[in-house]
Amino acid sequence: MKRVYLYDTTLRDGAQQEGISFRVSDKLKITQKLDDLGIDYIEGGWPGANPKDTEFFARASDLKLKTAVVVAFGSTRRVDVKVDEDAGLKTLVQCGAKAANIVGKTWDRQVKQVLETSLENNLAVISESIAFLKSKGLTVFFDAEHFFDGFKSNPKYAINALLAASKGGADCLVLCDTNGGTLPSEAASIISTIGKKVRSPLGIHAHNDSEMAVAVTLAAVENGVTHVEGTMNGYGERCGNANLCSIIPALQLKMGIKCITTAQLSRISDISHLVAEVANLPPISNLPYVGSNAFLHKAGLHVSAISKWRESYQHIDPKSVGNNPKVVVSELSGKSNIIFKAKELGIPLHPHGKEARQILEQIKQLENRGFLYEDADASFEMLLLRSMPGYKPPFTLVDYMVVIERHRRLPAAYDIGAQFLAEATIKVKVDDKLMHTASEGNGPVNALDRALRKALLEFYPGLAKVDLLDYKVRILEGNSGTGSLVRVSIESGNSKVQWRTVGSSTNIIESSWLALYDAMEYFLLKIDKKHRK
Amino acid sequence: MKRVYLYDTTLRDGAQQEGISFRVSDKLKITQKLDDLGIDYIEGGWPGANPKDTEFFARASDLKLKTAVVVAFGSTRRVDVKVDEDAGLKTLVQCGAKAANIVGKTWDRQVKQVLETSLENNLAVISESIAFLKSKGLTVFFDAEHFFDGFKSNPKYAINALLAASKGGADCLVLCDTNGGTLPSEAASIISTIGKKVRSPLGIHAHNDSEMAVAVTLAAVENGVTHVEGTMNGYGERCGNANLCSIIPALQLKMGIKCITTAQLSRISDISHLVAEVANLPPISNLPYVGSNAFLHKAGLHVSAISKWRESYQHIDPKSVGNNPKVVVSELSGKSNIIFKAKELGIPLHPHGKEARQILEQIKQLENRGFLYEDADASFEMLLLRSMPGYKPPFTLVDYMVVIERHRRLPAAYDIGAQFLAEATIKVKVDDKLMHTASEGNGPVNALDRALRKALLEFYPGLAKVDLLDYKVRILEGNSGTGSLVRVSIESGNSKVQWRTVGSSTNIIESSWLALYDAMEYFLLKIDKKHRK
Repeated sequence: MKRVYLYDTTLRDGAQQEGISFRVSDKLKITQKLDDLGIDYIEGGWPGANPKDTEFFARASDLKLKTAVVVAFGSTRRVDVKVDEDAGLKTLVQCGAKAANIVGKTWDRQVKQVLETSLENNLAVISESIAFLKSKGLTVFFDAEHFFDGFKSNPKYAINALLAASKGGADCLVLCDTNGGTLPSEAASIISTIGKKVRSPLGIHAHNDSEMAVAVTLAAVENGVTHVEGTMNGYGERCGNANLCSIIPALQLKMGIKCITTAQLSRISDISHLVAEVANLPPISNLPYVGSNAFLHKAGLHVSAISKWRESYQHIDPKSVGNNPKVVVSELSGKSNIIFKAKELGIPLHPHGKEARQILEQIKQLENRGFLYEDADASFEMLLLRSMPGYKPPFTLVDYMVVIERHRRLPAAYDIGAQFLAEATIKVKVDDKLMHTASEGNGPVNALDRALRKALLEFYPGLAKVDLLDYKVRILEGNSGTGSLVRVSIESGNSKVQWRTVGSSTNIIESSWLALYDAMEYFLLKIDKKHRK
Repeated sequence: MKRVYLYDTTLRDGAQQEGISFRVSDKLKITQKLDDLGIDYIEGGWPGANPKDTEFFARASDLKLKTAVVVAFGSTRRVDVKVDEDAGLKTLVQCGAKAANIVGKTWDRQVKQVLETSLENNLAVISESIAFLKSKGLTVFFDAEHFFDGFKSNPKYAINALLAASKGGADCLVLCDTNGGTLPSEAASIISTIGKKVRSPLGIHAHNDSEMAVAVTLAAVENGVTHVEGTMNGYGERCGNANLCSIIPALQLKMGIKCITTAQLSRISDISHLVAEVANLPPISNLPYVGSNAFLHKAGLHVSAISKWRESYQHIDPKSVGNNPKVVVSELSGKSNIIFKAKELGIPLHPHGKEARQILEQIKQLENRGFLYEDADASFEMLLLRSMPGYKPPFTLVDYMVVIERHRRLPAAYDIGAQFLAEATIKVKVDDKLMHTASEGNGPVNALDRALRKALLEFYPGLAKVDLLDYKVRILEGNSGTGSLVRVSIESGNSKVQWRTVGSSTNIIESSWLALYDAMEYFLLKIDKKHRK
C-alpha cells in the first residue's frame, strides 16, 4: 500500500493567522497531541527568528514523542555569504531538531525582482544550502516557494531549481502553491510532468486562497506526491493553509491510503478542538469531518430518511473521525426530528400520538415569535419536560422589576464614564416560600441575574458554581427599529458541562429573563438534581 | 466562449445553515442583490412548505429584476398519487415562479429504503412530474439527489433516472453530491461518462462535507457541465454548499469563462458582505476572494516583497473582486485616514495639527470601549463636530430613567403573552428650557426613544419623520456573560437619507441611548438644520 507522510505546520505557517499567538508551552502541548494523532513531521517554528521559537526547539528535544520528528524551518543561505558562514543555517544545525525544512525560490521573476540575484546563483544557493545541512546529518526538506507560478512562468528554470535541491541531497522536494491560486487540475498536470523529470520524493504545500487547498493536495497525491504539508483546522495567513483535518480522513477513508491507525483517526475531532482551544479561537462548527455541525441534520426529510437508514445523508461514519451525528429541531423540521430528539433525551414520545404534534405546533408558534431551538438544546428539553404530566418546577417567578437610571448626581460607573445605575428586584417562590431580593449590576440583565441567584442560593447552593459563559443578542425585525423582536441566547456552564437556552420578546429584558430562567431551571432539574439543600 | 449558468440557492439550501432564518423582506432584498450581481437563476424557497416561502413567491413576482429568473423548489410527485393531483406540483405551478427545480431520487437503495417504492415506479415518478411542469410552461431543472453515490452503487439505474428526466423534458439535469463525499477526480470521471450517455445539459450541485465543493464544481465544469448551483459565502447545512463567491471568480479569472460582467464581478465582495449582514452572521474574514483578510499582508518579508512587486504574494488583483490588499495599519496611516475622512465631510483638519492626533487618540480609547466607527459614519461625524471650537448642541441630556416590570397584575402585553411593562422618563434641555417627559414602549429602548421624541418634537417637528430602520446588538466579550460590553448600532432615516450611529457600554440601555443620541443630533445638525421651529 502507498505510504503518504503527514507534515504539520500549524506551529509555524498556521501561527501566521491573524489572532493566533502561541506561547512555548502551547506549542509543546500541540506537539504532543500531534504525535498522539500519528503525524510524521511537526514543524515547530523558525529558530533564531524569535526567542520563543528558539526556546521551543530547546525544550522540544526533551519531549517523549512516539513517532513524530520535530522539524525546524529556515531558508536557503543569504545570496552574499558563504554557506558555512550563514547564521540561519547554523541555527538550524544547532537548534536541536533532527530535520530541517528550508524554503527557496523557484520562480525566475521572484529570483530577479525580490531576491535580487542571478538565476545561476540561486541554483547554487539551493544546492549548497541543502548539502550543508545534509553534511550535518539532518533530514532535509526543500520548500519550493511559488513552485506552480514559477513553473507557469518558466518551466525549465523551475525544474532546474528542483534538480539543484536534489543534487544537494534533499530528502523531499515540496512543491508550494504559495499564493494559493492554482487549480487542482493544473496542479495535477504540472506534478505529473515533474514526476517524469525529477527522481526525488515530492511533497505538496497548498494555501487556500481559491478554496481548493485540500483538493490541490489530494490531486497531488493522486499524481504521485508522497509528502503532504498542512495545518490543523486549516489555520494560516489570509485564507489559511491546506487543512489536515480534512486531508487525513480523505486519504484514509476515501483513497485507501493508510497514514495513521484507525484509533488515531478516531481522535482527530478531539485534537482539532484542542488545537482551537490552545489557539484561543472558537471551534468552527461547520468544519468538514471534525466540526460540531459536520453531521447535523435539520431538514425533516433528511431526519426521516436517516431514521430509516443512517448512512443515507452521511458521507462517512462520523464515529470513524470521533464525531457524532446531531439532529436539531426548528420550524422547518418535522415531527420526526422531535421524536428522534426526545428519544435521545430519554423522553418517550409516541410517533403517532398527539404530544409530538402539540410540541411541534408550540415550537412553530414560539419560533414565529423569535425563539430558535436548533441552537438551544436546554430550552428545547425544558419545553419537553414542562409538557410532561406531573411536571414540578424547582421555582416559579412571581414578579420582577428593573430600573436603569442615568443621573447627573450618580458617580461615573464601571470605568465606562457614564453616570448610570442598573438595579433589579425579583420575587420568586420556592415551594411555598416567597423570596424577594434586590441587586445592582453593571447592566440591567446582570442586575436581574444577580437578584435571581440571591433568591435561589439559599435553596440551591450549586447555582453558585454556574457561570454565564456567553450571552448573545439578535434583533429579528430590523425594520421596526427599537420596537423589534429581540432574541437572546445564553450559554451557561459549570466546570463540567455547558448548555444553551433562548428567549425572545420585544423587550430585551424579558428575552433575557426567559433565557436565564430556562438556564437555571435546566441546571436544577438535569444537572444538580440531587443537591437541593 | 463557453457559457456557464449561475444558479443561487442561498435562500433555500443556504437557509438550512444553523442560525440562518430569513424573513420574507430579507429574501427579497437578497434576490435584488443577486440580480445586480448577474446571477441567472435565484432559487427562492419551497412554496407550500411554509407560509414564508409562499409569501416570498407572491411578492417576488413584483420585483423588477434585470436578468435573473426566480425559481421555485419542490420535489417529484408523491409515489402514490396521480401527477395532476399532486399538491406539491400544483403549488409550483401556481406560486408565480417561471421556473421550477424538483428533486428526485437516482440512488437505487434510496428509492427502495427511503422512498419505499419500486425502481420502475420511481422512473415514472420522475418523468411524469417533469412533463407535468413542462406542460404548464415552466423551465424545469431536475436535481438528481445523491447522484454520485447512486452512480457508484448502480450506474445503470442512475443513468436511467437521468434519462427519465430527459424524457420528461427537463431543461437541465443537475448532478447532486448530496452528502458531499465525492472527490473531484471521481466527479470528473463520472461526469465524463454521463456526458456520453445523456444529451440534456448537465448541472452540478455540490456540498462541502469533504472541503471540496468548489473543486468538485470546477472539475464538473472542466468536464462539460454548464449549470452551477451554489450559495453566497458557501452557506448551507452541515459544512455548507459550494461557495459561489469562490466559484465565480475562479470561472472568470482562472478558467476564462465569462458568466457576469467585469463590473458585476467587482461587486461580489460587497454583495457577499451584504448577504452576511442580512443573514445576521458575522462576515468570515478568511473567506477566499471576498474576505477582509483574503489579501492581508503581515509586516516583514511579504510586505517588503509586495513593495517591490505587488503581485508577488497575491494570486489575483484584489480589485477585480472588489476587495483590497490589507497591510498592517500604523498609527500614522490612522491619522491620515482621519484627515482624509474629515476633508470628505468638509471639516478642515491640519495634517500636522494637534486636533487630528487628539481625535485619533479619542477614537482609539472609544474603540477600546467597544465603539466601532468604520460602520457608523454619523457617529464619527458627530465626534468631529463636537471637537470643533464653538460647537453648540441642539439639545442636552440631563437625566433618564427606564423601568421594566414583569408583574402578575399587568395585562398580557404586545401579543407576546408576557405581562410586562417598559416605561421611560427623560429630562433634556433645549436652550434653557427643561423638558421632562415620559413614555411607555414595547421594550425599554423603544420607551426611551419615544420619551426623547416627545421632549424634542415641540422644537424640532422634523423628527416626527425620522424612523429607526435598523437596530443591532453585538456582545463584545462573550466570556463575561451578562456583564459583557454591549455595542448597539442604529440605522436611522427619513424618506431621503439614511445614517448610522453607534454606542457601547456594559449597560445595553446606555449603549442604545448613546447611539440614539448621535442619531437624533446628527439629523438636527446635518439634515434638518433649517427646520428649527
